[in-house]
Amino acid sequence: MSSKRPIGLLDSGFGGLTVVSEVFRQLPQEDIVYVGDNLRCPYGSREPQEVKRYLFQIMDFLAEQDVKMIIIACNTATAAGLEAAKSRYNIPVLGVITPGSRAAIFATQRGRIGVIGTEVTIRSDSYRREIHRINPQLHVVNRSCPPFVQLVEEDRTDSAEARLLVRDYLAPIREEQIDTLILGCTHYPLLAPVIGEVMGEGITLISSAEETAREASAILQVKQMLNEQNPHPSHRFYTTGNPDYFCEVGSRWLKRSIEVAGIKLDD
Amino acid sequence: MSSKRPIGLLDSGFGGLTVVSEVFRQLPQEDIVYVGDNLRCPYGSREPQEVKRYLFQIMDFLAEQDVKMIIIACNTATAAGLEAAKSRYNIPVLGVITPGSRAAIFATQRGRIGVIGTEVTIRSDSYRREIHRINPQLHVVNRSCPPFVQLVEEDRTDSAEARLLVRDYLAPIREEQIDTLILGCTHYPLLAPVIGEVMGEGITLISSAEETAREASAILQVKQMLNEQNPHPSHRFYTTGNPDYFCEVGSRWLKRSIEVAGIKLDD
Repeated sequence: MSSKRPIGLLDSGFGGLTVVSEVFRQLPQEDIVYVGDNLRCPYGSREPQEVKRYLFQIMDFLAEQDVKMIIIACNTATAAGLEAAKSRYNIPVLGVITPGSRAAIFATQRGRIGVIGTEVTIRSDSYRREIHRINPQLHVVNRSCPPFVQLVEEDRTDSAEARLLVRDYLAPIREEQIDTLILGCTHYPLLAPVIGEVMGEGITLISSAEETAREASAILQVKQMLNEQNPHPSHRFYTTGNPDYFCEVGSRWLKRSIEVAGIKLDD
Repeated sequence: MSSKRPIGLLDSGFGGLTVVSEVFRQLPQEDIVYVGDNLRCPYGSREPQEVKRYLFQIMDFLAEQDVKMIIIACNTATAAGLEAAKSRYNIPVLGVITPGSRAAIFATQRGRIGVIGTEVTIRSDSYRREIHRINPQLHVVNRSCPPFVQLVEEDRTDSAEARLLVRDYLAPIREEQIDTLILGCTHYPLLAPVIGEVMGEGITLISSAEETAREASAILQVKQMLNEQNPHPSHRFYTTGNPDYFCEVGSRWLKRSIEVAGIKLDD
């Protein structure tokens, strides 16, 4: 039965674990297969064509694992390749930009939305386009924050350097009188405490990770593909990087011990 | 083009206007057609078979208006007839119970969820079943509140009587240590200020109305049926009751002047 197949998720590295964590919480009976491309992380300053090639390599691997849905748990890969990826296989493919955009439309009170992300994501202007498809009246301001992903990948989100960098990069967006800020990179929820502190009271932070898990739930339900009565779901993790390091960091972030295998993808 | 067709919404009376209000906010470019069955309101204490017959009469009317999607903006009608309604036409049919359940799964911190609704809704146990399909570990308590719909239909939500009734009916649920309360009737968001006051701090109120508009947005997008570039959408309202009274109350609630026509349905 198609509903018993796992959900496939992928990211440039650890960032997509924020989506995994929300899948565990919001869809606790689903099996998952995750691929982190830590060896080639970060994606955010590469050429979009290169990111798209990596994305398709990982999607091919996930398709071989017979997944029922693929979640591109990476804003950069979503911006670079979602449209092409949707027609690649005959299963639903969900990116993180559409759910994050919808959540911002839902949350905004005064119609002023900020978006932070990697260079590829921000240059693609994907969030603004998604938001304006639904509501052209909303004001959307973008800001790329290139160093944030490395802070997370190197597990330095609680450092003095993190606080300085966040304050510095968010300064222009603080002047824009936004009421809602989209964390347009799946790594950023791990910086949310610092980002929230810098932005101050009254700004709603949207985690595209949380929203994507929720939208995956809605799509699986509409397509009658929810996995029900599966009290002991299977969770498989793969990395192109060092499996031991992935296991150490991933287990800590997900607050459960995980098993990780290495995979090699052609460059 | 199918995306240019209106969304159809229906309710036993005024309650579904809470969904309309959220469609205006979250999907401002969509045309809509609304039917309020005020003449036969409330539905909540009728036999489910009778409610289902009313539901199908209204859906037939909406289908004649060539709608692209039907939102059953009424918990009682959703509980009584959603499953049968889904196969009635070849368009998406969305109830309010599934989106409200998903939002509660998203919101709960300690896994204890309360549900209030009409007698039909609560007896159907639909919320508990929907929540447990996705996460059987969550604790769900139900409570029917029969007089609440009349308070809203008669526009007495700010009365001393409303405060007394809400306090009385919510007393058992206040002892259940819930952290999330589903307003399982589209009329109830209009009582939300009083309900919030009675429940106290730290309880998340879930409006199935808000969540349903959001899930409608996701479904229309996945099905590529969003209405884009429609800056002057059309909004048509019909009632089986008194059109002048509907116009007066509806215009006030929606904070815009609306046009209302009467319709007659066989009893």
